[in-house]
Amino acid sequence: MKIKIGKILKENIALKKEIERLYLIRDISYKIVSNLNLSDLLKIIMETVKERLRVEACSLLLLDSKKEELYFEIALGEKGDVIKRYTIKVGEGIAGKIAQTRTPIIENNVEKSDIFNPKFDYLTSFKTKSILGVPMLYKDELIGVIEAINKKDDKPFDYDDLDLLQIISNEAAIAVKNALLYNNLKSLFFDTIESLVNAIDAKDPYTHGHSKRVSEFSVLIGKELNLDSDYLEKIRLAGLLHDIGKIGVEDTILRKKDKLSEDELIEIKKHPTIGKNILAPIDLLEDIVKGIEEHHERYDGKGYPKGLKGEEISLLGRIISVADTLDALTSDRPYRKGISLDLALERIKEESGRQFDPSVVEALLSLYRKGLLKCSGF
Amino acid sequence: MKIKIGKILKENIALKKEIERLYLIRDISYKIVSNLNLSDLLKIIMETVKERLRVEACSLLLLDSKKEELYFEIALGEKGDVIKRYTIKVGEGIAGKIAQTRTPIIENNVEKSDIFNPKFDYLTSFKTKSILGVPMLYKDELIGVIEAINKKDDKPFDYDDLDLLQIISNEAAIAVKNALLYNNLKSLFFDTIESLVNAIDAKDPYTHGHSKRVSEFSVLIGKELNLDSDYLEKIRLAGLLHDIGKIGVEDTILRKKDKLSEDELIEIKKHPTIGKNILAPIDLLEDIVKGIEEHHERYDGKGYPKGLKGEEISLLGRIISVADTLDALTSDRPYRKGISLDLALERIKEESGRQFDPSVVEALLSLYRKGLLKCSGF
Repeated sequence: MKIKIGKILKENIALKKEIERLYLIRDISYKIVSNLNLSDLLKIIMETVKERLRVEACSLLLLDSKKEELYFEIALGEKGDVIKRYTIKVGEGIAGKIAQTRTPIIENNVEKSDIFNPKFDYLTSFKTKSILGVPMLYKDELIGVIEAINKKDDKPFDYDDLDLLQIISNEAAIAVKNALLYNNLKSLFFDTIESLVNAIDAKDPYTHGHSKRVSEFSVLIGKELNLDSDYLEKIRLAGLLHDIGKIGVEDTILRKKDKLSEDELIEIKKHPTIGKNILAPIDLLEDIVKGIEEHHERYDGKGYPKGLKGEEISLLGRIISVADTLDALTSDRPYRKGISLDLALERIKEESGRQFDPSVVEALLSLYRKGLLKCSGF
Repeated sequence: MKIKIGKILKENIALKKEIERLYLIRDISYKIVSNLNLSDLLKIIMETVKERLRVEACSLLLLDSKKEELYFEIALGEKGDVIKRYTIKVGEGIAGKIAQTRTPIIENNVEKSDIFNPKFDYLTSFKTKSILGVPMLYKDELIGVIEAINKKDDKPFDYDDLDLLQIISNEAAIAVKNALLYNNLKSLFFDTIESLVNAIDAKDPYTHGHSKRVSEFSVLIGKELNLDSDYLEKIRLAGLLHDIGKIGVEDTILRKKDKLSEDELIEIKKHPTIGKNILAPIDLLEDIVKGIEEHHERYDGKGYPKGLKGEEISLLGRIISVADTLDALTSDRPYRKGISLDLALERIKEESGRQFDPSVVEALLSLYRKGLLKCSGF
C-alpha cells in the first residue's frame, strides 16, 4: 500500500511539474508570437531568456544562408551593442558549431573549451564563463542561434535549462520567421518607392535625391515632436511621395532654367493635386495623401491648392512643408547656388507663424541645436 | 489514509486532463501561428474547428470596425462559398450579438432562438440546427467571430466544446491579426506601385492602363504554366514594373505620333536597361529586375538590349514579352487602331519559336481556348 501511495504521489509531483512547464510555454508563446515588429520581438525574447534562465547576458544570432554566416541581431548585457556589427562563419566557435550541427551545446567551463572564440570577450571586455546555446529551428529551416551566457550565482547550466531554452527558441523561431517576412516586405516596399521616386527626381537634375532628403528631414522633425513609430512611418512615406505629382508635369517645365511664365507656374502648382489624385484610390494611404496634397499650404492660409490655414492643414503637410523648404534652400538650383544651413534656418525662422507652423519650426531648430541635422547630407 | 489516496488519484486524473488540454493548445498554436498567408491560415483554422469539435460546418467572420459589420471571410461546409459575399451588422443575429457583447453563445435549438437569422440558411439551403459561437479577441481588440455549426450525431454543444473553441479562437486571433497586417502591407505595396505605374503610363495617352494589363496577362500565363503562388507574385510585380524605365525617356519621344527617327529609336530602346538600373540596388527584386531588363529580348536571339537567346532569357522576361505584345497589338496606337484578339493571337502564334518562347505562346493559346483571356478588358 505504501509503495502505491509513493508512486501516486511521485506521479502527482511529475504531473504538476509538467503542467507548470506547459503553462510557461503558453505564456512565452503568447508573449512572443503576438509581435511582428522585429526589434520589439527580439527584445522580448532576450528579456525572457535572461529572466527565466537567470543569466548575465544572452545573444541572438540570425543565419544569413547565402553567406553561410551568423550575424548578431541582438545581444543583451552591458556591452551588447559593441558586437552587433560582427559575424561568425557557420562551423566557427560555439554558435557556429550549433548552427552547423543543429544541436544544443552546454559549456560550463568556457576556458577549457576548444571551440570557444574569445574574440567577442576581447571586444566587449566581458568575461564569458559558461554558455548554453540552442539552434532556432522553424520546421526544417535554421533561423539562427540563441545563447544564454553565465548562469547567475556561478551555477552550471543543466538539462532543465537546456529544455527551457529550447522551448523559448522554438517559439522564437516561428515569431522571428514571421517578423522577418514582415520586415522584408516593408523594406521592399520602401526601397521600391524610394527607387521609383529617385528616378522621377532624376528627370530634373536639380532635384536629384530631393524626395529622399525631405523624407529624412521630416522623420527627424517627427521624432523631435515625439510622434509614435507608426506615424513616423507615415511621415517617411509621405516625404518620399510628396512630389510624385510631378510625373504629371511636362519635362520641359520641370527642367526649365529661366524664370517660369505665368502659365507654366499654374502648371507646376498642380503637382500637389496631381499627387493626391494618383494615390487617392488607396484607402490605407488616406493620411499620406493629405500630406502630399497640403505640402504647399501655408500656416497663414496664403498657400495652395486650397488655401488652408493653421491646424486645418494636416500635421504631415505642415512637417513636409518645412522639410521641403529646408532642402530647397540648401540645394543648388538652376538660378542660384544653395545657401548654408545656418542661413536657411534663419529664413525658415522668419517665416514661423507665416509660412510655417511655429511648433514644427521649433522642432527643426531644436534638432539643429542638438547637432542632429548633420546626418542628412550637410 | 484511503481518503488521501482517493483524493490524490482524483487530482491526478484532473491533472492529466489538464495536460492533455495544454498539449492540444500547443498543437493548435503551432499549427495556426506559423502562417502569415491569410487564406491558408483560415483554412487551417476552419479545419481544426471541424475536426476537433466534430461539427458539420463552421464559419469565420471578420470585423470591419469602420462599418461596424462582420463579413464572412471563410465558411466551410458544402455551400460555404455562397455566403462569402454577405455581411452582418454588429448586434444582428447570433454572430452580431457575439461581436457586440464579446461573449460566447451556445444555441442548441436554433429554431427556438429569437436572434437567429435564417437568411443564410435560405441562401445556402443549409439547415442550421445548433450553433456555438465565440468572439476572436486579440488583446482588447475584437477581430471577429468563429461559429461551429451542427454538432455531429445530433449532440448538443456543451461547456467543454465552448472551452475548446475559445482556445482555438484565442490562437486564431493572434494569427489572423498578424496575417491581416501582412496582407494589408502587401496590398498597400501592390496598390501603390500600380498607382505610380498608372501615372507614368498616363504620360502617354496611348499606353493608358498598359502596365496593369500586361501584369494581368502575365499572371494568367503563369497560372496556366502551373507556377507557384510566390512566382505568380513576382510575375505580377514584374509585369507592373516592366516599362518603368520610360521614366528616363523624354516625354516628347514617348508621345510622338509620327514615326520615330533612328536616334529616337535608340533612346526608347534604352528603357529596359534604365528600368533595370532603377531597381537593381534592391536585392529582393533580383528576379524581377531580370524580367524588366529582358522583356524585349527575342527567343531567336535577335532582341535587345543583350541579344539573349532561348532559355538564356529569364522565364519572367519570356512571359512578359508575350503579354506585352498581346496588349500592344490589341490597343489603339497613334499610327493604327488595335487589332482583334483573334488576329493578335494569330500573329503571336506565327512568332512562336522566333520572337517568343513556344511554351509561353502555347500557354496563352490554351488560356484563349478555355475562355480565360476575356477577364482582362476584351
